[in-house]
Amino acid sequence: MALIVQKYGGTSVGSAERIKNVANRIAKTRAEGHDVVVVVSAMSGETNRLVALAQEMQDFPDPRELDVVLSTGEQVTIGLLAMALKNIGVPAKSYTGWQVAVKTDTAHTKARIEEIDDAKMRADLQQGKVVIVAGFQGVDSNGDIATLGRGGSDTSAVALAAALQADECQIYTDVDGVYTTDPRVVPEARRLDTITFEEMLELASLGSKVLQIRSVEFAGKYKVRLRVLSSLTDGGEGTLITFEEDNNMERAAVSGIAFDKNQARINVRGVPDKPGVAYQILGGVAEANVEVDMIIQNVGAEGTTDFSFTVPRGDYQPTLELMEKMQESLGAAEIDGNDSVCKVSIVGLGMRSHVGVASKMFRTLAEEGINIEMISTSEIKVSVLIDEKYMELATRVLHKAFDLG
Amino acid sequence: MALIVQKYGGTSVGSAERIKNVANRIAKTRAEGHDVVVVVSAMSGETNRLVALAQEMQDFPDPRELDVVLSTGEQVTIGLLAMALKNIGVPAKSYTGWQVAVKTDTAHTKARIEEIDDAKMRADLQQGKVVIVAGFQGVDSNGDIATLGRGGSDTSAVALAAALQADECQIYTDVDGVYTTDPRVVPEARRLDTITFEEMLELASLGSKVLQIRSVEFAGKYKVRLRVLSSLTDGGEGTLITFEEDNNMERAAVSGIAFDKNQARINVRGVPDKPGVAYQILGGVAEANVEVDMIIQNVGAEGTTDFSFTVPRGDYQPTLELMEKMQESLGAAEIDGNDSVCKVSIVGLGMRSHVGVASKMFRTLAEEGINIEMISTSEIKVSVLIDEKYMELATRVLHKAFDLG
Repeated sequence: MALIVQKYGGTSVGSAERIKNVANRIAKTRAEGHDVVVVVSAMSGETNRLVALAQEMQDFPDPRELDVVLSTGEQVTIGLLAMALKNIGVPAKSYTGWQVAVKTDTAHTKARIEEIDDAKMRADLQQGKVVIVAGFQGVDSNGDIATLGRGGSDTSAVALAAALQADECQIYTDVDGVYTTDPRVVPEARRLDTITFEEMLELASLGSKVLQIRSVEFAGKYKVRLRVLSSLTDGGEGTLITFEEDNNMERAAVSGIAFDKNQARINVRGVPDKPGVAYQILGGVAEANVEVDMIIQNVGAEGTTDFSFTVPRGDYQPTLELMEKMQESLGAAEIDGNDSVCKVSIVGLGMRSHVGVASKMFRTLAEEGINIEMISTSEIKVSVLIDEKYMELATRVLHKAFDLG
Repeated sequence: MALIVQKYGGTSVGSAERIKNVANRIAKTRAEGHDVVVVVSAMSGETNRLVALAQEMQDFPDPRELDVVLSTGEQVTIGLLAMALKNIGVPAKSYTGWQVAVKTDTAHTKARIEEIDDAKMRADLQQGKVVIVAGFQGVDSNGDIATLGRGGSDTSAVALAAALQADECQIYTDVDGVYTTDPRVVPEARRLDTITFEEMLELASLGSKVLQIRSVEFAGKYKVRLRVLSSLTDGGEGTLITFEEDNNMERAAVSGIAFDKNQARINVRGVPDKPGVAYQILGGVAEANVEVDMIIQNVGAEGTTDFSFTVPRGDYQPTLELMEKMQESLGAAEIDGNDSVCKVSIVGLGMRSHVGVASKMFRTLAEEGINIEMISTSEIKVSVLIDEKYMELATRVLHKAFDLG
């Protein structure tokens, strides 16, 4: 008998029928002899509906009051799921964030969990009840409702699993696990039985939508055994995200390939090559609250340097305008950019012990005539910026080159 | 400067536009120098939507979980209204029932308020904030959400006004006060400037939909000055519900006329006329959880009696079937009934000091050829059961006979 935390996202509880399906799945886990704590999101569409209502009131809704409104989405789901379970004879009890209590800091709409009281949940589990907790929400030290931000239900589930020292935290989504790459792009993409936290972190931050990155960090920090499964299909073991490093020396160098179209490149050309120029450029961007990803600096002609960086595509125009405004003070010869680029990354813990992974990536792309505009690397990842029209081709040839099929 | 509690019902906050109108109205009251505490209902339609969702889960939704789901309706409104107020520069803060806290007993879906903590609200008022409280809900001694039942927001408002010793509790509805009778039936119906609690209680329980009866009882108990106003039209003093008895001897005998079509009559004929027969009949009805209103017992032929009573129309068929089942044990000769009857009542504190009010009522109806089937009276009310086809006619002629126009 194990204690299992299961998290069901908005799509999984998107209709009355789907909530009933979730109830059946929980009943099955319980029938196998396990204790179950369930974390649920708002029914799909509900959060967007509430945000739209709030924006009709205020262009920038007051964060405290927005949390009051948004937290109702999950509150509806916990009540409905408890009813669905009782309807099939499974004892169940729902809790909002404040009822548990899930204690957070006071950063409304993006609060962080500080502490979870497990007393009520443990008492209910001892009585054989399924405990249902509203994801995405908690209560701060003022007694105010605070939400964790979009995707926060994953974090709620992992935090509850950590607090309860659960044997496993199962994240049910509309995919049946983590794949070597997106199967819609590469039909040969293969579901991974296991992946390490480090790899998952790189994949999550590189645009893989399977798990919210904060929940993965949280799981790593508290050593929570995390599994991604499909709520739509039955059976299947999904992908287990492990914190133990795999000692298999034969481990493949690359575990997966991520890609991200949300990229744009800004070039600041012909800047005088003197200390502080990078700070001057990037400081201005940071002040505008724009997140910079890749950065390169090339020596240009006659004591000048060319400086390039990438930003999210939505920030392309404002950043370009910002640079044009700064052009004179920077002494830059030219400002330009490109918002039809994408980032393709290979990720794998095995890179640590395999040399030549990066060069194999570059050669593979070169053979297809794909020009690499920028490169960034970490210990377990190599990312390249390329023309977005080559994104699918690059992903396919890399998937094949690294034998991921 | 006064402390005013304002309550806005579901129609008044039924859309984004209407919530903004409510915000303007609150801003106006505040600009007049008053402190304002606002109680709101769920946006119209929302409670029905949530009930329907719950019923898809369970034919009879678990009461604790139903309260979890239903209480979200008011929670959304408080957040939105706080945003709307902030948007026009009025400082405001919202509270759910548990945040206040409004403490209730544990009777889910029909809880009663036991205690209200006014500390947070007073602190906010002192800081010049408008306090917005979710109506219809509280928190019980288990820390569970408990709702007060349909119309409970009126009761929330009166209870808050009592706890805060507010100068006035204003109930905003879609009518602009209490009328001598329904203006849709009698165009000459007149809005009353004042009405006493006793009269309001009789009118509320007789089918007038203006105020929920429990809120009126509550206001009487705690001597809360209560006013009914329209949220849809501007200006107007509405109707003040007073607890002081009006000492004007010239006071009209009758204040208003109420009517109610939700009536059905059951006859149990030819029952042996011996002690205990009324208890035997009505005990059975009470056990079936049916509310009996009017009751008469007539001496019949040869030591038997005819027994008649009225029930809500929705309970007519089951009650008739129940009586037919009991016929043999009662020794009744015949069971029949009539579900096309209605109740018309005249209400007025002045009846106490005016003789002949009832006989004037009976004469007026007789002159129109309207047969009276049953009569019930209290100190300040006379009700008659008549054929429902005469309901409008009876109301009109009584309204005229008692000079209410």
